[in-house]
Amino acid sequence: MAGAPPGPTPFADRLYQAVRTKNTRVCVGLDPVIDRLPGDIRERAVEHYGDGPLAVAMAFDEFGRGIIDATAEFAACIKPQAAFFEGCGPAGMYVLQALIQYATERGLLVIEDAKRNDIGSTAEAYAQGHLGQVKLIGGGAGRAFGPDALTVNPYLGRDGLLPFIKACVQFGKGIFVLAKTSNPSSGDIQDLIVEGRPLYMRVAALLKELGSGLEGESGFTPIGAVVGATYPEQAVELRRVLPSSWFLVPGYGAQGGTARDVVVTMDGAGMGAVVNSSRAIIFAHASDAAKAAGFDYRQAAAAAARSMRDDINSALAAR
Amino acid sequence: MAGAPPGPTPFADRLYQAVRTKNTRVCVGLDPVIDRLPGDIRERAVEHYGDGPLAVAMAFDEFGRGIIDATAEFAACIKPQAAFFEGCGPAGMYVLQALIQYATERGLLVIEDAKRNDIGSTAEAYAQGHLGQVKLIGGGAGRAFGPDALTVNPYLGRDGLLPFIKACVQFGKGIFVLAKTSNPSSGDIQDLIVEGRPLYMRVAALLKELGSGLEGESGFTPIGAVVGATYPEQAVELRRVLPSSWFLVPGYGAQGGTARDVVVTMDGAGMGAVVNSSRAIIFAHASDAAKAAGFDYRQAAAAAARSMRDDINSALAAR
Repeated sequence: MAGAPPGPTPFADRLYQAVRTKNTRVCVGLDPVIDRLPGDIRERAVEHYGDGPLAVAMAFDEFGRGIIDATAEFAACIKPQAAFFEGCGPAGMYVLQALIQYATERGLLVIEDAKRNDIGSTAEAYAQGHLGQVKLIGGGAGRAFGPDALTVNPYLGRDGLLPFIKACVQFGKGIFVLAKTSNPSSGDIQDLIVEGRPLYMRVAALLKELGSGLEGESGFTPIGAVVGATYPEQAVELRRVLPSSWFLVPGYGAQGGTARDVVVTMDGAGMGAVVNSSRAIIFAHASDAAKAAGFDYRQAAAAAARSMRDDINSALAAR
Repeated sequence: MAGAPPGPTPFADRLYQAVRTKNTRVCVGLDPVIDRLPGDIRERAVEHYGDGPLAVAMAFDEFGRGIIDATAEFAACIKPQAAFFEGCGPAGMYVLQALIQYATERGLLVIEDAKRNDIGSTAEAYAQGHLGQVKLIGGGAGRAFGPDALTVNPYLGRDGLLPFIKACVQFGKGIFVLAKTSNPSSGDIQDLIVEGRPLYMRVAALLKELGSGLEGESGFTPIGAVVGATYPEQAVELRRVLPSSWFLVPGYGAQGGTARDVVVTMDGAGMGAVVNSSRAIIFAHASDAAKAAGFDYRQAAAAAARSMRDDINSALAAR
């Protein structure tokens, strides 16, 4: 490798560094819903852009920047949910891209939750457009959506994962592959028994195989897994087989997972998992406590993110 | 139901009507790749828009309109692949939306191949943004991406399907759920044996359950399945358990599936499946035959779509 230029710092190492230096395992889920945004943001958007999809997207833009500013100190990463941006049409995708860049500038790692999946050159197009670079007509490279990591669905097998992994290695990015999700019906497919073990363990075995040899300095690979906090026993099982994967853990708070449930996904040093909370942080302004305190949405989000950080760190210290 | 206003005509019935009246089972896969577009389209795009992601998107726009015009007579539907539009960034999503509308105006049914998947309110956001309507700030409804049907990944179980099915019923749309895909590694997950049968049959059982009672006048439900032409035996098995589902059959042509392989997915009347071909139609201009004939990309695509239509109809007549 003598003479090879140093590649970009791998996502797994950057996440390790962020969790350690900021001492937080919080991932803020940016899942904007227009009805739940503060009234002044919605009114301003209609006034400036008219009452169409663009106003919805621009309201998400102002709201998203406010949430990023308010929570950057307390979170390791932010996870914009592509569905809510796509849900207001193409304008929403510009805002998604802009917010990814804004969060990066504010020092947050960005996990784009898009659950993309396809095969061959199609998966490559997703990988380039999100994690890599847009291929231009003259041969140059244009700006992609640009997150540090992307969530990916494994149903298509390794053909559907390899193009994403290739982009991860080339651009220092990461993926989080759905293994055992937090929803009540995740068992319909994921818990089916294959050769005596649940399907999600087979997915884990595939991720382990594909990640082998890709460990960075931190010991973690670019191939993470989505592991719901609502199924702590399964999370422990997955941690055992995937010691070198970052876990993205949804289901804390609103969905019922506790701090004790989520710390089981972390290694002895308290590393290896980031825990997502969406509504309980970004819509904290609607809570009675926030109203009693006179908090605006940013103050409420900051307080919720800080309290979640401390809740998880206390559970780590107490185990 | 007396007094209830008539709902929109269900997608399954509209597809039935299109296949019968046009006597074609062809679905044109719109998978644009910038390097393979005709030189004059690429040059015009750079001249008009500069050499950035917008030029790539606008080249896809001109090319896509040309393909739609050329193939509308010979195809029942067109299937834009979202990955290639997303792969050039947000501008590509505007072009995707515009081409969906253009194809609709030209009398083609549109299947958006986006393999979306999520749960609960997030899946609802995808369903609204693609199949339904954008929810505006003032309470009104804005324009969604607007295809007639969307491809969906089943890994999250029924929580991940129900919001899409709800939108199908409300707006007269359809979904095609990945069951057995055409790629070489589709067996990594989909063929795993669960209680003595492959996983894709368990997915089929779930689709059958969810579709029950949703049959339209044609006898088909809004819940279709993606069933690769490269696995004809599995396709026959799936047809048996899903007699009321439209199949979207990829893998014809470039991937190795023949007309004889694909007609096994159709019922006795030759209904129940549309067969996709992408590269062999949209990049037909690069073939020696097209060059010898002096065809431009539109003439070449029209000839390829017509020949595929006839190939499948002949195989149907011969069985």
